[in-house]
Amino acid sequence: MTMRRFDGREKNEMRPVIIDTEFLKHPEGSVLITVGETKVICTASIEDRVPPFMRNSGKGWIAAEYSMLPRATEQRNIREAAKGKLSGRTMEIQRLIGRSLRSVVDLSSIGERTIWIDCDVIQADGGTRTASITGAFVAMAMAVKSFVEAGKIKTWPILDYLAAVSVGVDAGQEELLDLCYKEDADAAVDMNIVMTGNGELVELQGTGEEASYSRAQLNSLLDLGEKGMNELFLIQKELLGSIDEDIQTKKEAVE
Amino acid sequence: MTMRRFDGREKNEMRPVIIDTEFLKHPEGSVLITVGETKVICTASIEDRVPPFMRNSGKGWIAAEYSMLPRATEQRNIREAAKGKLSGRTMEIQRLIGRSLRSVVDLSSIGERTIWIDCDVIQADGGTRTASITGAFVAMAMAVKSFVEAGKIKTWPILDYLAAVSVGVDAGQEELLDLCYKEDADAAVDMNIVMTGNGELVELQGTGEEASYSRAQLNSLLDLGEKGMNELFLIQKELLGSIDEDIQTKKEAVE
Amino acid sequence: MTMRRFDGREKNEMRPVIIDTEFLKHPEGSVLITVGETKVICTASIEDRVPPFMRNSGKGWIAAEYSMLPRATEQRNIREAAKGKLSGRTMEIQRLIGRSLRSVVDLSSIGERTIWIDCDVIQADGGTRTASITGAFVAMAMAVKSFVEAGKIKTWPILDYLAAVSVGVDAGQEELLDLCYKEDADAAVDMNIVMTGNGELVELQGTGEEASYSRAQLNSLLDLGEKGMNELFLIQKELLGSIDEDIQTKKEAVE
Amino acid sequence: MTMRRFDGREKNEMRPVIIDTEFLKHPEGSVLITVGETKVICTASIEDRVPPFMRNSGKGWIAAEYSMLPRATEQRNIREAAKGKLSGRTMEIQRLIGRSLRSVVDLSSIGERTIWIDCDVIQADGGTRTASITGAFVAMAMAVKSFVEAGKIKTWPILDYLAAVSVGVDAGQEELLDLCYKEDADAAVDMNIVMTGNGELVELQGTGEEASYSRAQLNSLLDLGEKGMNELFLIQKELLGSIDEDIQTKKEAVE
Amino acid sequence: MTMRRFDGREKNEMRPVIIDTEFLKHPEGSVLITVGETKVICTASIEDRVPPFMRNSGKGWIAAEYSMLPRATEQRNIREAAKGKLSGRTMEIQRLIGRSLRSVVDLSSIGERTIWIDCDVIQADGGTRTASITGAFVAMAMAVKSFVEAGKIKTWPILDYLAAVSVGVDAGQEELLDLCYKEDADAAVDMNIVMTGNGELVELQGTGEEASYSRAQLNSLLDLGEKGMNELFLIQKELLGSIDEDIQTKKEAVE
Amino acid sequence: MTMRRFDGREKNEMRPVIIDTEFLKHPEGSVLITVGETKVICTASIEDRVPPFMRNSGKGWIAAEYSMLPRATEQRNIREAAKGKLSGRTMEIQRLIGRSLRSVVDLSSIGERTIWIDCDVIQADGGTRTASITGAFVAMAMAVKSFVEAGKIKTWPILDYLAAVSVGVDAGQEELLDLCYKEDADAAVDMNIVMTGNGELVELQGTGEEASYSRAQLNSLLDLGEKGMNELFLIQKELLGSIDEDIQTKKEAVE
Repeated sequence: MTMRRFDGREKNEMRPVIIDTEFLKHPEGSVLITVGETKVICTASIEDRVPPFMRNSGKGWIAAEYSMLPRATEQRNIREAAKGKLSGRTMEIQRLIGRSLRSVVDLSSIGERTIWIDCDVIQADGGTRTASITGAFVAMAMAVKSFVEAGKIKTWPILDYLAAVSVGVDAGQEELLDLCYKEDADAAVDMNIVMTGNGELVELQGTGEEASYSRAQLNSLLDLGEKGMNELFLIQKELLGSIDEDIQTKKEAVE
Repeated sequence: MTMRRFDGREKNEMRPVIIDTEFLKHPEGSVLITVGETKVICTASIEDRVPPFMRNSGKGWIAAEYSMLPRATEQRNIREAAKGKLSGRTMEIQRLIGRSLRSVVDLSSIGERTIWIDCDVIQADGGTRTASITGAFVAMAMAVKSFVEAGKIKTWPILDYLAAVSVGVDAGQEELLDLCYKEDADAAVDMNIVMTGNGELVELQGTGEEASYSRAQLNSLLDLGEKGMNELFLIQKELLGSIDEDIQTKKEAVE
Repeated sequence: MTMRRFDGREKNEMRPVIIDTEFLKHPEGSVLITVGETKVICTASIEDRVPPFMRNSGKGWIAAEYSMLPRATEQRNIREAAKGKLSGRTMEIQRLIGRSLRSVVDLSSIGERTIWIDCDVIQADGGTRTASITGAFVAMAMAVKSFVEAGKIKTWPILDYLAAVSVGVDAGQEELLDLCYKEDADAAVDMNIVMTGNGELVELQGTGEEASYSRAQLNSLLDLGEKGMNELFLIQKELLGSIDEDIQTKKEAVE
Repeated sequence: MTMRRFDGREKNEMRPVIIDTEFLKHPEGSVLITVGETKVICTASIEDRVPPFMRNSGKGWIAAEYSMLPRATEQRNIREAAKGKLSGRTMEIQRLIGRSLRSVVDLSSIGERTIWIDCDVIQADGGTRTASITGAFVAMAMAVKSFVEAGKIKTWPILDYLAAVSVGVDAGQEELLDLCYKEDADAAVDMNIVMTGNGELVELQGTGEEASYSRAQLNSLLDLGEKGMNELFLIQKELLGSIDEDIQTKKEAVE
Repeated sequence: MTMRRFDGREKNEMRPVIIDTEFLKHPEGSVLITVGETKVICTASIEDRVPPFMRNSGKGWIAAEYSMLPRATEQRNIREAAKGKLSGRTMEIQRLIGRSLRSVVDLSSIGERTIWIDCDVIQADGGTRTASITGAFVAMAMAVKSFVEAGKIKTWPILDYLAAVSVGVDAGQEELLDLCYKEDADAAVDMNIVMTGNGELVELQGTGEEASYSRAQLNSLLDLGEKGMNELFLIQKELLGSIDEDIQTKKEAVE
Repeated sequence: MTMRRFDGREKNEMRPVIIDTEFLKHPEGSVLITVGETKVICTASIEDRVPPFMRNSGKGWIAAEYSMLPRATEQRNIREAAKGKLSGRTMEIQRLIGRSLRSVVDLSSIGERTIWIDCDVIQADGGTRTASITGAFVAMAMAVKSFVEAGKIKTWPILDYLAAVSVGVDAGQEELLDLCYKEDADAAVDMNIVMTGNGELVELQGTGEEASYSRAQLNSLLDLGEKGMNELFLIQKELLGSIDEDIQTKKEAVE
């Protein structure tokens, strides 16, 4: 007999996911993604220039920034702007988001432009980095769509869907999908998985928290992750409508 | 015959103001204030200690921080956390918000605690600092209420309502109430007014932008400001319900 | 019967003001302004380029910096250079000085140049920001004069005189002109007024220090301020000699 | 017929690994680890206090820092001390090293002490973070040994061996063990594996570089990693001599 | 026949030196030292605590800070506070001033206090660091005197006079005393000498500027320096009056 | 009868000096210099551009950076990269190294290039700055040689050998050559001497540590320094082989 989790979920059950699109007025693309009690504003801004290391490459770039409101969390955090520097955690997450999105975009097709992704967590309850990636993909796709429709980008540059979930092993050695904060704080193993729409891995980051895990556990966690991922892709496809066809066409062209 | 403004408003007309309370889960008090297209998340967090300069004074402190999402604006702004320092504008606004709120709170009554006010602009269309003050007052009152109800604060410490509006003089020397971004950018005079519920001034900051203004104009601007302020106090009173009585009692005791 | 102030002054009496011109050898314009015990070195330096945001605008810029010697004050202050960042107070004052001076200069006439204003307080006894503005105007006028005489600036760009004073309300609800440090520290209301030679307001910053003030008090404070301002303009006119004519001509041309 | 790699290695072949112990005079433990052309000085310093968040916990902490000499690389890098901040890459690596080492140490047994791990790359040719972990484990074990022998630490706190290798997929979809810089720069997939002596995973970080990978590829990469890991454990065991017994005893006690 | 210098001085001639004492109101000791066109405000502030590394040592400390007004020089310099960090030159000078003063003070006699020396150059024409040391000694002696007279310091702690001059070798291999800026900029060798009243060396810093010098030249430069130093000690003795006796007594006691 | 030093050396005896050349793979020139227990990695990197202040001068530049591993010392030091700024000591040493090397190089001959010198102390036991200069000269000469041989630099630009030693006066007023850390910490006078191969002084920095010294002592210290310097030049000449001839030729041409 399986025990349910403290919030009543099955071990392989995601929290409810809602993605509100066109959440803000100014950005080219913006969403509010809600995963349980976690809420992240993701925006995509397209700028007509690239960072120095990409100049004259004929290719574009995708850069991501991540932040939390001071009171997104149970205890108020000091702002990184007030401290005058980013924490290692923030830098790690920013790099992860940017790298993940770049893996499904043909940077040549967007020209010498930067897509700035901003993920601002307004309420945190675990899984903020994975929610950021899942939401940012939608914001980016919408920003790109507007540029394609305006003729500024000639070829549809997004090669596949992209989403992320967390999985983990709790203190009782149970594997769980989509950890909330309380579960994450107690987990022995914490793993973030980023996947493309066709089921390939883009990022896999699995950490034993003063603990370790076997390859068998790794496989169970990946199975759980795939289940969650498929639910996220359904939501993305529903929202992105005709973009879906563009991605399909592109994927076929690539294959 | 009077010309209407570009958005159809009369010169003495505020934009619609909505204050959503209990907007976030974690803070002791939180609102989303919407003034036209300007949207600010204001939270109040109560911490059981004071900054070094207030230690052993028996009094509390109110500190405010203000920030904008990078894409709250038409053009994306570089994050202050990424630049590693706060701009002069941010510091000026933070100091204004904190000083304004402190003017209506009896700091002795809250004990050696800090009320942290965080104002995060998620969408900007002019008047972000005045919306921040008006919203932060409500968030603070709710946080204080929860502490009073829990018996942690013994005496109701808030002495009066507090709100803020902007007024200004446009290029054609017309005086306007509640400037949106487009009006603000072209204004010859830009003035922020912070007032208490009984009509006293707390802060008055009037700036000629490569221009100057007469005392007659100053008076017209203050009249406009008072009109807007009264509308804001009505909204605050409706939201704060029984707090209103606490403030009334306190005010009578003080008078 | 009116009480005199602790230093023997009437309520509407300024402290003695002395402006020593050509105080330093290198700057294009420099003064030492003394207001009672407050002493500020103000210099104006003209640089043949503008900040990035003004490039190719055909217009110049005026930028101000403000600092205090560590021992300008009763207690030694830590240098901002040693702390590695400017305080909010410093930034606020720098922005105020720059904005005030720009309001009386035709930036097109100076060409793509920056006038750097440096205000260094060597001894502080209240009113350092207003003394800085009053002194900086003279330093700037002298620097501009040398450039006009050298033919580097073709049209006299200064449109009017500019000075500043502080006024305030003390704990006993008395309105006072030109607060020294002791009065400022105890004031219920603290107001800085920046005016042009023809009596128009450029900046008005009135702050209730954990207090508020009525519009009637505001009017009394402005009356006091105007009295002080007229005394400052007399000193400026005496010093600037023929510049006075240039300003008169310019003002007539503008009117 | 399998193609050999550009440096003549088989796909599943490590570069030569040498660990020189007692490399420096002052630290409690120090090694120079050489992996092919990659050379890292790893030191372990034991300090009699813990960071603020661990105070009064009765437990110790392990903190790691990582740096490269400016000319460890083909092109000279600007020092992070000169830039005044750590890069995201450096922070990520530091956090990885610290977290990995903490997974095999019983922090209660070391008391309220911090083991500082410093990994300074003097020559870089790929795999600097994995070499750092493998070398740092040996430096840490030696430092701990000296404290145990001096009676300052009562119970042997290290639970198992720990090492790390990189694996990857090259542009031709070949899986490779222990990538040198040239291979790493061209890799489609780059994976760092940290394992304990009993074959459990501690960290798994697999990144598609503008690419993705299947679960089948993941499994092949893990097989390659295990092969390399076993070679590293042999070297560690040979060096650590009697420490090996301590670890064995401890492991048995734990199981 | 000897050539005179460009400003008419003999090679072994100092510029006129004036030390105005009690220049500022707040500091315990303050002077304005003028050496030719170089002008430095030197203040001494006594604080009742020492830096962490001196706590519980029973001894005091002397710390020095040095800065230039932005327009102390021909070209305006960017403020170090605006850049957010001190230059290497500033740090070098600060360390030199502090170390020099500490060499003539019995730190045990001042108790656990810090004497803060602030040297702010308001006009620079060469020799600012040596003028700072010469002036700072007088400011420090006066601050110490007030503490001795108030009974806060029991034993006169200053062991000897202290002053500094620059000497150098010009492009024509002529040795010069007290270089002004123009001479310093062209010098082949630049040397700063700090000496005690009894003719002992405290600091000697001689630098070949893309040049070198022989021991014979070193000796000539030291002879020149001694001549200048004797003139400075006469000025210091005249100013310090009865302090002179204290120093004499102390010196005899020490010898 | 003379007492030997605590490590058995005579007062005028250097510690053993070893310079390993081609220590690292990537830099144009690199050495590991060992002086007793002090070990410094010195590298020279040649970059095809100069700092802004040298642009279009037709001349090159030599810039030096200096750092210590955290555990080069008895107690672990906090990294300057972690603190976010360089200490005054580091800046002072960096400036000394760069200035010293520039004194023996004809900057016109190297063209608009920067020679970056990096001195990284991996083990410290006194004299790290002098060892850095002595080792950096060799690394630089080798880097320059490779550029001359490759035809990128047409004229041999190094005018003379360059080395550095420390000398000092101990508490018992004995003069010592080449102080180790223990001697340096207790010294009354600490002096660093930088000389060219023909016996001219380039830098002389002599500091009384809360002490002073006579001109007679200065002369004895310089005699000791010359003795050590001659031993260092022999080692440099042996290592640099044919470079020696280039320097001789150049020196004759200059004379």
